[in-house]
Amino acid sequence: MKTVQAYAAKDSHSPLELFDFNLPEIGPEQVDIRVEYCGICHSDLSMLRNEWGMTSYPLVPGHEVVGRVEEVGSMVKTLKPGDRVGLGWFSGSCMTCQQCLGGDQNLCSQGEGTIVGRHGGFANRVRSHWIWTTPLPDSLSGETAGPLFCGGITVFSPILEFGVRPTDRVGVIGIGGLGHLALQFLNKWGCEVTAFTSTPDKVDELSALGAHRIVNSRDSSALKSEAGKFDFILSTVAVPMEWSDYINALAPRGRLHTVGAVSEPIPVGAFPLIMAQRSISGSPLGSPSTTVKMLEFCARHQISPTVQEFPMAKVNDAIELLEHGSPRYRIVLKA
Amino acid sequence: MKTVQAYAAKDSHSPLELFDFNLPEIGPEQVDIRVEYCGICHSDLSMLRNEWGMTSYPLVPGHEVVGRVEEVGSMVKTLKPGDRVGLGWFSGSCMTCQQCLGGDQNLCSQGEGTIVGRHGGFANRVRSHWIWTTPLPDSLSGETAGPLFCGGITVFSPILEFGVRPTDRVGVIGIGGLGHLALQFLNKWGCEVTAFTSTPDKVDELSALGAHRIVNSRDSSALKSEAGKFDFILSTVAVPMEWSDYINALAPRGRLHTVGAVSEPIPVGAFPLIMAQRSISGSPLGSPSTTVKMLEFCARHQISPTVQEFPMAKVNDAIELLEHGSPRYRIVLKA
Repeated sequence: MKTVQAYAAKDSHSPLELFDFNLPEIGPEQVDIRVEYCGICHSDLSMLRNEWGMTSYPLVPGHEVVGRVEEVGSMVKTLKPGDRVGLGWFSGSCMTCQQCLGGDQNLCSQGEGTIVGRHGGFANRVRSHWIWTTPLPDSLSGETAGPLFCGGITVFSPILEFGVRPTDRVGVIGIGGLGHLALQFLNKWGCEVTAFTSTPDKVDELSALGAHRIVNSRDSSALKSEAGKFDFILSTVAVPMEWSDYINALAPRGRLHTVGAVSEPIPVGAFPLIMAQRSISGSPLGSPSTTVKMLEFCARHQISPTVQEFPMAKVNDAIELLEHGSPRYRIVLKA
Repeated sequence: MKTVQAYAAKDSHSPLELFDFNLPEIGPEQVDIRVEYCGICHSDLSMLRNEWGMTSYPLVPGHEVVGRVEEVGSMVKTLKPGDRVGLGWFSGSCMTCQQCLGGDQNLCSQGEGTIVGRHGGFANRVRSHWIWTTPLPDSLSGETAGPLFCGGITVFSPILEFGVRPTDRVGVIGIGGLGHLALQFLNKWGCEVTAFTSTPDKVDELSALGAHRIVNSRDSSALKSEAGKFDFILSTVAVPMEWSDYINALAPRGRLHTVGAVSEPIPVGAFPLIMAQRSISGSPLGSPSTTVKMLEFCARHQISPTVQEFPMAKVNDAIELLEHGSPRYRIVLKA
């Protein structure tokens, strides 16, 4: 029996505290990871605050893990102790449904969330199913790679899944943890990249990330003047926006894709969809196969999250910064 | 100078009356069609009543024309006098923009509508650009083919454009002029076809059109029990529906596509899109190339609109039936 030393919240408003628990014997398809780094995602905050009504306390957050394989179950063929790996939002899927069989394990209706009803990566150890435990290419740094496994794959997957092409004009709404990775991916994809941001003065920073153009998302007339331009707009924000302006900013055949789980319904006019054959869509994370492709793409193009590192013992300071500050762009805890 | 004998409305509430006008000399890329039949579409009614605020009176409606080429302009290479042809919603496009050059002439922002600012097919003659004047395969009947050029192509194009596959489970919302063609197309496409209809008792009729399953669109619990089933749902209705039930009825990767120009915004929850990678979209008519493919598909599979024929002189009776009755399924005027 292994003991895990973790940081847990006992309810929706208390700070995290040290929390020890025991892991049962490892299952045949499971992997235990010795955590080295773990990113902090907005979903950790939503789970901490029980915004989605599905949090079990004590909650150990953390689902952007980088570490080394410590032990593998008897049926695990892809990994061995010592391998450097990453783990994201999903820690398991049923492996037998149509989605799992079809390679869409991220769309499995029985998918297991790393921090949903179980304990995540703000800990020295975390357990996962082998299929969600992805080897990290040698050239990617453990210090920065964690956020790729949730924030990164969330924005990379729709670029691949919905056939964004290097000749496309694309936009990214919201340049935070997800958006700053989307800019990098789309720039290296070969696209003309526009950042829609409420802090358009950070020109050098946004340009360095890959933006060719910057539009102030709070300037209604600037948004309206973008009408008809974009083949693909990726929204990473979880608050209501001037959706009709963004839909009108799409070119014929264009797509507005959201990975931000805004709770207010998006009002979609039928006419603007119909007249220009436009689409609206969403997607969750990405499949294990797409995760491998993303990591290779990152390695080939030197793409990495920009992170602010905190020791894991300072997790509450880190959460405070995420909740009330503006981290540039993703916080990573060092175990 | 040719005289056209037509039926026109002088304002938004008067019946149609006989109306003669002269055509200027034919342009080099134009075609004059001697009208033999013309379907009546709900868009004719919307234009008659100026619901979209873009009607010029006197209005000669009619944009589901079948007839014979009477004269062609000097640059027309594809048609000659006597050819049997069809003409739909579009009578022209700019032929030089990115959409036209790319084969998406139906997405041309300068597209000319057959009854928008010019006179349509409730007449003995109608003029069009050659690219929107499509030869009718010999095996298709002139009496019934007219509705294919608007109602038919409107539902056929998204099936082709969005990659509906014969293994897909699909649904059609609203079984009227468009829906009764969508059932036929999708059945011959090889799909499992469900009709969502407010008249689910017409089982034999819906089955004959190609529906394998019938769901009462007014039965909320029946709709909810369809959750997660459909790869593609095509909505042909222009009134608000229980959109969230239809979105939830989509399988992972499913698409809800509307060709019905409902004026109230469709409220789209981000979560239902994100969790199952679903899409919402719309489209207008179809390209000339897709129209040719549709006609070949109809000829190969003996697909044709079910029509009720009126002599053109009885056009006001026909409009009364469309506005206040339930034509089964499309009205066609005989010139």
